[in-house]
Amino acid sequence: MISVQEATNIVLQQSRSFGIESVHFGQSLGRVLAQDILADTDLPPFHRVMMDGIAILKSDFDNGCRSFKIQEMQRAGEIPKTLSLPNNAVEIMTGAALPIGADCIIPYEQFEIIDNNAHVQTEDVIHFQNIHSQGSDKKKHDVLIKKNSTIGAAEIGVITSVGQTELSVYKLPRIHIFSTGDELVEPEKTPLPHQIRRSNVHALQHILKSQGIEGTQSHVADDYESILAALKNVLLNNDIVLLTGGVSKGKYDLIPQALEACGIQKLFHRIEQRPGKPMWFGKGEHTTVFAFPGNPVSTFMCAIRYLLPFLRQSLCKESMSAVHLKLATDFVPHPSLTFFLQVKIHIDEQAIAWATPFKGNGSGDYANLIDADGFLEIPPSEKAVLKGTSFPAFLFRTSSFM
Amino acid sequence: MISVQEATNIVLQQSRSFGIESVHFGQSLGRVLAQDILADTDLPPFHRVMMDGIAILKSDFDNGCRSFKIQEMQRAGEIPKTLSLPNNAVEIMTGAALPIGADCIIPYEQFEIIDNNAHVQTEDVIHFQNIHSQGSDKKKHDVLIKKNSTIGAAEIGVITSVGQTELSVYKLPRIHIFSTGDELVEPEKTPLPHQIRRSNVHALQHILKSQGIEGTQSHVADDYESILAALKNVLLNNDIVLLTGGVSKGKYDLIPQALEACGIQKLFHRIEQRPGKPMWFGKGEHTTVFAFPGNPVSTFMCAIRYLLPFLRQSLCKESMSAVHLKLATDFVPHPSLTFFLQVKIHIDEQAIAWATPFKGNGSGDYANLIDADGFLEIPPSEKAVLKGTSFPAFLFRTSSFM
Repeated sequence: MISVQEATNIVLQQSRSFGIESVHFGQSLGRVLAQDILADTDLPPFHRVMMDGIAILKSDFDNGCRSFKIQEMQRAGEIPKTLSLPNNAVEIMTGAALPIGADCIIPYEQFEIIDNNAHVQTEDVIHFQNIHSQGSDKKKHDVLIKKNSTIGAAEIGVITSVGQTELSVYKLPRIHIFSTGDELVEPEKTPLPHQIRRSNVHALQHILKSQGIEGTQSHVADDYESILAALKNVLLNNDIVLLTGGVSKGKYDLIPQALEACGIQKLFHRIEQRPGKPMWFGKGEHTTVFAFPGNPVSTFMCAIRYLLPFLRQSLCKESMSAVHLKLATDFVPHPSLTFFLQVKIHIDEQAIAWATPFKGNGSGDYANLIDADGFLEIPPSEKAVLKGTSFPAFLFRTSSFM
Repeated sequence: MISVQEATNIVLQQSRSFGIESVHFGQSLGRVLAQDILADTDLPPFHRVMMDGIAILKSDFDNGCRSFKIQEMQRAGEIPKTLSLPNNAVEIMTGAALPIGADCIIPYEQFEIIDNNAHVQTEDVIHFQNIHSQGSDKKKHDVLIKKNSTIGAAEIGVITSVGQTELSVYKLPRIHIFSTGDELVEPEKTPLPHQIRRSNVHALQHILKSQGIEGTQSHVADDYESILAALKNVLLNNDIVLLTGGVSKGKYDLIPQALEACGIQKLFHRIEQRPGKPMWFGKGEHTTVFAFPGNPVSTFMCAIRYLLPFLRQSLCKESMSAVHLKLATDFVPHPSLTFFLQVKIHIDEQAIAWATPFKGNGSGDYANLIDADGFLEIPPSEKAVLKGTSFPAFLFRTSSFM
């Protein structure tokens, strides 16, 4: 058995790139950029008018002019007009490029139009006022979005504004989820009294889906030859293989033996943790194998705690600092195992992030996970920990606070 | 002009259901349940063995037996065996149903097998030990997942375990995004010096996409008749119409007039906020209309602040309490407008959630949004606020802490 920290290090050492591909921006949400996004022009690309009103030359105003002849109108998207005579103005709309010869915008609220002349009613005019000047946000070729950023809606805004319609992103891994266990039947079927439905693979598949990865899945009976044949096949065609069940020490827990027979080198088996102690992890020539315990909550927790950080690092997502939450109740840790405690998160009016545990934190069924937002990682200790103590947290649900 | 709180109330008053539909669990990630999910059997459905070992009758042990004859083996998924004679044992695997006549499990570590007899080496045997007893988690017909829960990977685990393959969920609205502005060109095109690319609609479309909604979009020129014709069409075929641009007070800001001509009743125009002051909101017979300012950050912020809570309430997502974050720097609020300050969130080792603002929080371009996780909502004030003050936050990015 190894510690949670040792297991984490071994898993993360195996992280690796799955390559790079090009995708259209419309299919890029959640993907990680393998390129910088550069400004293709200055931003703004021109002196951009920020208020509706008139564009004038400030020196005309300084020379005493308070009545400007409106020579014409210029809308957003029109080629810039040119102030053709002193004391002229161009009536102008937000978003337009600054007319040639003008250097400030007076908004409608500060003048009155009489007979096509704008009578300015302010004495307070500043050079370049209400103008978002060319290049003031970014210069052409400045980096707008750094490589390794995750693409969200804001990034899509920037990406489309610079005309980058095809994006270089990190390829997602091919992942197969493999279940064993003769007691399992498909969700569509009614199990006999001694059977249960196959649900772990579906939960795992949806953990992947929430990361934008469409994993495949299959099931084999608890029979060594069948497991071996099926494993060989999925190991050939996938970057990552996930297994659930068959890694405990029972006579029919054939997975570790079958994996090693397929050339997968064991990197660890069993972690000093609850739930999820029997987890097995190994590597083949091209494949990384996470073999999770068959227990639903163990599988779920191990996937959040080990698989997701592995994927995050493999996909070059920017590193994040661990989130810490304060325990909202006293708690008695396990004396020798790291305990993963299911909690609900709540950020209060003092901006303190609280973690409230549930009753009955066994690893036996999913029902406890439904109300949880994540797990607190509580190291082994002989002593009870008090309400208000902070622990690192692994979150898997945002719907409670976004 | 109305306050942010008044605008919020008016928007939320318009929330409504878009109906109910049935989806396969494989397409249900992120959807909201319109039904309870019930246990179809007791959970566990049988007395489930939790350790590999032998199943015996405790009274045999109490009567002095320490050597149990292993009559046969029972694996997970097999029909339960029956202890056929006193002092017999069934060798048993984790996940199996308790053999008939047995009432405790002794793990492998506590006995040795010699000549098919298990010699028990412990004096410490408890009735029903290492058995997860039938119905101890949930009874048949108990509610496992409440109506109005959002479906995540944990819910998929429960849903498949009870065989609920078709789910009743709230229908997503049909949403059309509509842009105006003659200065806009498509992302694929190279804009002339006075033009910019059309990016707001794409950012909006991806805000929707991150909520699982595939919005449609179109663009019309700044021409009243064209706008009117296009609007009439999209108002007929959508539950929600989003517009960007054309709601300021300029001569070519034709949207409010066009919307009212199409029978959309104005519920408010202009909010005491920055950015996003010119936002317009109204309702038709079947359609809710959010007309956002053309400025990219204004559109983005208004969508996060008003559209997402409207969608959340319409889709019956469980209500959430506001998240509060502590300002990591001093800040000078606007004297008369609510200021939405772009911030990066960081939860520190004391579990305090900090919000760090960026320089240059203008509403002019997207570049500032790239590093932000959300907005702090800072009410108008004449006084500076100090580092450490908490404000409600609207988060739009989880990649920094999940």
